Amino acid sequence: MFKKRDNIKEVEEGKYLEPKFDKNGLIPVIASDFKTGDILMHGYMNDEALKKTIETKEAHYWSRSRNKIWHKGQTSGFVQIVKEIRIDDDQDSVWLIVDIGDGASCHVGYRSCFYRSVPLGEINNTENLKMEFKENKKIFDPKKVYRDEPNPTKL
Amino acid sequence: MFKKRDNIKEVEEGKYLEPKFDKNGLIPVIASDFKTGDILMHGYMNDEALKKTIETKEAHYWSRSRNKIWHKGQTSGFVQIVKEIRIDDDQDSVWLIVDIGDGASCHVGYRSCFYRSVPLGEINNTENLKMEFKENKKIFDPKKVYRDEPNPTKL
Repeated sequence: MFKKRDNIKEVEEGKYLEPKFDKNGLIPVIASDFKTGDILMHGYMNDEALKKTIETKEAHYWSRSRNKIWHKGQTSGFVQIVKEIRIDDDQDSVWLIVDIGDGASCHVGYRSCFYRSVPLGEINNTENLKMEFKENKKIFDPKKVYRDEPNPTKL
Repeated sequence: MFKKRDNIKEVEEGKYLEPKFDKNGLIPVIASDFKTGDILMHGYMNDEALKKTIETKEAHYWSRSRNKIWHKGQTSGFVQIVKEIRIDDDQDSVWLIVDIGDGASCHVGYRSCFYRSVPLGEINNTENLKMEFKENKKIFDPKKVYRDEPNPTKL
């Protein structure tokens, strides 16, 4: 759908969008908060989700758990308004800068999915690494919002 | 190596680090700039790279092009000092907050790998999407730094 990648110099230094999708047809996507700069989530898009995101200026992802295009906020109401889209040097990952107002991005209820911090330094036992919570307040109650929808988290 | 994932509630709401590596043994990693908040790069780690990063407080990745652990900055000198590591709700992606001083993260020579911005709005032709450069100055000359090393960008 997008311009064909046929020249590494063009991919790296050119002006044309030539995204690389992996063998499952997906490209990883980072969404960061327009206001705070915090990273909100990490997801994936297929070519159609990327096109819809560019055109509608609302983030669309590929849900790997539901195996379909996912208009973020469809259930929760927490739509991500896209302020800017960046792509990296080899065009195999995407960065969205999004406005979520006072909303949340995380299906567990927190504002950012990255609400836990890993301890740094020497490890005595990798099975016993206790993290610190950086967000203490949930923005919404997932049970009320998602009701009977299956949890996207897989073991 | 890390704690076994055997309970979704624990993965999402627990204190223990229980990262999920994909079938290639990798987890996606985002590195953002401690000073500016900008996203610098998107990469991958295997379990050993994650352990080394936690212990040494310097970012280690898995190089998919070279198929080995990659101590970022080994060739270029632009080491990433890790200020914080966060993990997301289902523990299948990692966010590093790093200090690179006045250095660069991008093998093309720019400070951030995400130096191009995708135009938003209605698309007439997906093969003709012209991006805008957001960084104009290279921090280093990749030819001088990497010499004969193969370019990691693949078509």
